[in-house]
Amino acid sequence: MAQKVAVILGSDSDLPAMESCLRTLKTFQIPFEAHILSAHRTPGEAHDFAANAKANGFGVIIAAAGKAAHLAGVLAAVTTLPVIGVPMKTSMMGGLDSLLSMVQMPKGIPVACVAVDGGENAAILAAQMLALADEGLSERLAHFKDDLSAQVLEKDKKLQEGLAQ
Amino acid sequence: MAQKVAVILGSDSDLPAMESCLRTLKTFQIPFEAHILSAHRTPGEAHDFAANAKANGFGVIIAAAGKAAHLAGVLAAVTTLPVIGVPMKTSMMGGLDSLLSMVQMPKGIPVACVAVDGGENAAILAAQMLALADEGLSERLAHFKDDLSAQVLEKDKKLQEGLAQ
Amino acid sequence: MAQKVAVILGSDSDLPAMESCLRTLKTFQIPFEAHILSAHRTPGEAHDFAANAKANGFGVIIAAAGKAAHLAGVLAAVTTLPVIGVPMKTSMMGGLDSLLSMVQMPKGIPVACVAVDGGENAAILAAQMLALADEGLSERLAHFKDDLSAQVLEKDKKLQEGLAQ
Amino acid sequence: MAQKVAVILGSDSDLPAMESCLRTLKTFQIPFEAHILSAHRTPGEAHDFAANAKANGFGVIIAAAGKAAHLAGVLAAVTTLPVIGVPMKTSMMGGLDSLLSMVQMPKGIPVACVAVDGGENAAILAAQMLALADEGLSERLAHFKDDLSAQVLEKDKKLQEGLAQ
Amino acid sequence: MAQKVAVILGSDSDLPAMESCLRTLKTFQIPFEAHILSAHRTPGEAHDFAANAKANGFGVIIAAAGKAAHLAGVLAAVTTLPVIGVPMKTSMMGGLDSLLSMVQMPKGIPVACVAVDGGENAAILAAQMLALADEGLSERLAHFKDDLSAQVLEKDKKLQEGLAQ
Amino acid sequence: MAQKVAVILGSDSDLPAMESCLRTLKTFQIPFEAHILSAHRTPGEAHDFAANAKANGFGVIIAAAGKAAHLAGVLAAVTTLPVIGVPMKTSMMGGLDSLLSMVQMPKGIPVACVAVDGGENAAILAAQMLALADEGLSERLAHFKDDLSAQVLEKDKKLQEGLAQ
Amino acid sequence: MAQKVAVILGSDSDLPAMESCLRTLKTFQIPFEAHILSAHRTPGEAHDFAANAKANGFGVIIAAAGKAAHLAGVLAAVTTLPVIGVPMKTSMMGGLDSLLSMVQMPKGIPVACVAVDGGENAAILAAQMLALADEGLSERLAHFKDDLSAQVLEKDKKLQEGLAQ
Amino acid sequence: MAQKVAVILGSDSDLPAMESCLRTLKTFQIPFEAHILSAHRTPGEAHDFAANAKANGFGVIIAAAGKAAHLAGVLAAVTTLPVIGVPMKTSMMGGLDSLLSMVQMPKGIPVACVAVDGGENAAILAAQMLALADEGLSERLAHFKDDLSAQVLEKDKKLQEGLAQ
Repeated sequence: MAQKVAVILGSDSDLPAMESCLRTLKTFQIPFEAHILSAHRTPGEAHDFAANAKANGFGVIIAAAGKAAHLAGVLAAVTTLPVIGVPMKTSMMGGLDSLLSMVQMPKGIPVACVAVDGGENAAILAAQMLALADEGLSERLAHFKDDLSAQVLEKDKKLQEGLAQ
Repeated sequence: MAQKVAVILGSDSDLPAMESCLRTLKTFQIPFEAHILSAHRTPGEAHDFAANAKANGFGVIIAAAGKAAHLAGVLAAVTTLPVIGVPMKTSMMGGLDSLLSMVQMPKGIPVACVAVDGGENAAILAAQMLALADEGLSERLAHFKDDLSAQVLEKDKKLQEGLAQ
Repeated sequence: MAQKVAVILGSDSDLPAMESCLRTLKTFQIPFEAHILSAHRTPGEAHDFAANAKANGFGVIIAAAGKAAHLAGVLAAVTTLPVIGVPMKTSMMGGLDSLLSMVQMPKGIPVACVAVDGGENAAILAAQMLALADEGLSERLAHFKDDLSAQVLEKDKKLQEGLAQ
Repeated sequence: MAQKVAVILGSDSDLPAMESCLRTLKTFQIPFEAHILSAHRTPGEAHDFAANAKANGFGVIIAAAGKAAHLAGVLAAVTTLPVIGVPMKTSMMGGLDSLLSMVQMPKGIPVACVAVDGGENAAILAAQMLALADEGLSERLAHFKDDLSAQVLEKDKKLQEGLAQ
Repeated sequence: MAQKVAVILGSDSDLPAMESCLRTLKTFQIPFEAHILSAHRTPGEAHDFAANAKANGFGVIIAAAGKAAHLAGVLAAVTTLPVIGVPMKTSMMGGLDSLLSMVQMPKGIPVACVAVDGGENAAILAAQMLALADEGLSERLAHFKDDLSAQVLEKDKKLQEGLAQ
Repeated sequence: MAQKVAVILGSDSDLPAMESCLRTLKTFQIPFEAHILSAHRTPGEAHDFAANAKANGFGVIIAAAGKAAHLAGVLAAVTTLPVIGVPMKTSMMGGLDSLLSMVQMPKGIPVACVAVDGGENAAILAAQMLALADEGLSERLAHFKDDLSAQVLEKDKKLQEGLAQ
Repeated sequence: MAQKVAVILGSDSDLPAMESCLRTLKTFQIPFEAHILSAHRTPGEAHDFAANAKANGFGVIIAAAGKAAHLAGVLAAVTTLPVIGVPMKTSMMGGLDSLLSMVQMPKGIPVACVAVDGGENAAILAAQMLALADEGLSERLAHFKDDLSAQVLEKDKKLQEGLAQ
Repeated sequence: MAQKVAVILGSDSDLPAMESCLRTLKTFQIPFEAHILSAHRTPGEAHDFAANAKANGFGVIIAAAGKAAHLAGVLAAVTTLPVIGVPMKTSMMGGLDSLLSMVQMPKGIPVACVAVDGGENAAILAAQMLALADEGLSERLAHFKDDLSAQVLEKDKKLQEGLAQ
């Protein structure tokens, strides 16, 4: 059976920024669960979720958090599954605090960090990982890439029409 | 047959910082190739490598580059394989230029960014991805995690002996 | 025949910020084309455009992009024409990510970077380059400079009138 | 019996920078234990230490860590004791990564952050907290402050002698 | 009698951001006083307040200030009580100026810095300090922590219901 | 006759970092003059040089300066020639002060900024500008690009030999 | 006769932020002139103004500019009068570009930099300089300082009334 | 009698970086005193020095300090004399902490900030202030400026000789 993706939000206030993540996972037909779990407010539940994630059928964990964003690192500490970190934008230097808190992990415990507020890319990255053993998903990713390209070319075409007027 | 990891260096000056990456891949018994390919000086070769990587048996691409570090993004543009970016330390704000150039990818084309000079973690992350379909590798990752833990506990033990004197 | 300027936008969302660039090129009577081409979503088209730009009558390429702004570097990699980069403002530190991604190019492949959201200055810079072999354009630039100066002096005059009341 | 201070180091490489912390605790005659415990490599032991710290006679926890410095936050998550964070200097922007990872804690779980490499001040701050219920320690702190002042005045005196020559 | 907390605001414009601090102190049933005192505009009054704080029954001082935020350091210079600093958000890099002005204190005079605009956490930290000698307060802190956890779990439950629809 | 390049150094301390610039101009057989002229210490001479540069046979001005690096902007203010700015590395954040002082030019007066300490790229950029009207130089640039590429491929070949042993 | 203060704005868009500067000079009964003069658009006029400022009865120059803010340095280059720089807030990191461009002046040519958007403080600083030879102004400054203090104490009094309700 | 300059160092470790300041004051024949006084370790002495500075014959105060550099602001709080701040270079982002702590002063209490480690410029700025009422000093400043210019022109001459060989 297909491995699931876990999307863990450090706070419900992160949900709006991460809805494109959930939508993208659906688009790629990837089974997922989303949870609100905090590294600091529910450390036991966060620990247990990650420690049991592999046994519970998850293949990849996506963790979104802001400010001193420890969530991704705390989950990565207790699983061998790849953990993708999504630093949330903050009013402190546009999310630089979240980014550095997530990406600068010490030796031995990596987090795969994407851009600030990069929930959609986190979903695509999870899809790329799962596609290593799922040729159907790999093809959906290739089609997605073709669509991206086609959209840009379509926009360029419209720009040409606008300039020609 | 096992999927290979490609380690692409933007410059031969990145090799010393990335040797721990190659060593860690060997430790995990992961087949790999290492290449020097530049997004800016050999754009054609970089493009061709990534475009054909999946067909050539690669499962994950690790790209290390510094300053305006476009390599990971340029490779990710033409493959559906997961691309891990390793920002190299620079004299400009300790690698902040490399980090932002790598991690802030636009929607649709993710790069999985690790810490500045985080070559070893890039190898572990690649192993975690490949382990999704390789239970033996998954077990080696679990042992590695146990070893990390044991090393810290051993160091703590030595500290206690030192403090007791 | 006069060399054209190519204005390449990484996304159609960059168009509003770059309209002053197009307007300024018109003011200087410089023939130009504008295209939406992405380093990451349409890498092949971007490559082909730059590789053929000289043969197609272009003299200067202006590239506008934001975040991990690879567009200018990717174009510069495959042309000997001067490439001007315009880093787009982002919510991440006001465009510092775009700026560093553009300006910190490695040895051998320069990008001529202007200010964040500096589309108008990119056009003037392109005009200055083309004026090296176009005395008429050089004179238009000199007049433009005189106008700039006159506008400031006019504003100072109004300030004096206001203060005198 | 006097409450102890726990000094937790994320890595044995943090010991040299933190020796002034241990020395200062000794100077103030404060009982302490020092341990190497990692939020990421020994998450279970770190959790257990903090969860039991109050019961084991500790009054304050000092946590020193660098880069994505989650240690202080992870300990603070499972204790109601005050946790003092010491961000370690790194080659990434002089420790700004460590600082932001420690100080920007979310609502509900504070960390009392001192300066980058501020181990000595962490010890003084711990002493100030314990002195709230220990008048003898409060007096030692007042003497320490007088000594600080006297040292500066002595240095000024020497400067005057030097300038007078 | 219970030690009081002093909340010192550098300006009345800091009051809205610090109301959660006052509210949290009330929730924990901690006696407090709030004052507007400026390190630069009322240096004498600020000095006198801190110099006499211990004698006047205060146990902890919380100081909130923005920009070149000297208030916490100036108060800490003349008391042995723990001083908690709350850097106020500014339009200059989101409060990085306030943060660095507060946290980077020289050896001998610590300030316990919390997050930018972290008034609520300052109150909790003060409560943790006072709880070292107040078991009832310690229990209220433990209940507060349980509530935090319960709130997150409740939000997760609602998220599951939303996703199940 | 070929247009010359002017290389203006804000200080003789900038010469070592800029020697690659002079060497590269020689390689491309571009006639040049180098001068030490300061925007702040010799404002009259700097002004006169730029105001007369076009009449004196110059086509491009390269200006290198550090810290509050006003030189490029001051020269650009009085010429219609393209001015290339080279921000010098400083001990203040690795040259970020120089970079922002150079690149953030106001509307109307562009500076073409290259990377911190990017003297070699400034020379190449100047060559690209002059090549717009000099087909021989354009061909030398194309050969240079081929050489860059060949060097990378040669280094990759050596890496393969090293890995094969 | 009293020395005048010159307030030079790099652009009329800086006027709203600098009105408190003009108002404060009036409050202190200091004669002043305000001008819009640009280091880049009217370099000749800016040069002439500063070169003749002393002869024209000015004692202090205040210069306000944003982004690559060269104005204060360019004026300081041609006068021995003290020049006060006011970095204007920008959308690029909250004015960090303006600040670094102004404050990081090379040896020999100081600029007295105040806070971002600190026009009022620039006026007070100018008053402090002129008061060195004007005892009446010195007394007005002392009264101003007393008023500042009284305002804070009045606000504190209101806060106490509010808290008492 | 001529007004003296006070040079206040926050620590004796700041002396090497500030020796050029003392030397420059001597060059300009300005009477001065230098003292080590800390805003945090000797707050009373610092306060008294500044409060009495005017009465004691001082005209300008120069304050050098690093990290959370409160010294200049603390002195400025209790005098109407102009206070010049010299932010000392630190290992935290090259002195950005010192700079922001000094320059971002709140309304009403200005500090005249010079560059990081800019002790020599602080002396020149003090000279410029005192020269407002001292024509002889004003002439020495004009000669100093001429010397600066001559030194640059001499260096340019040597560069021309070197290039001609």
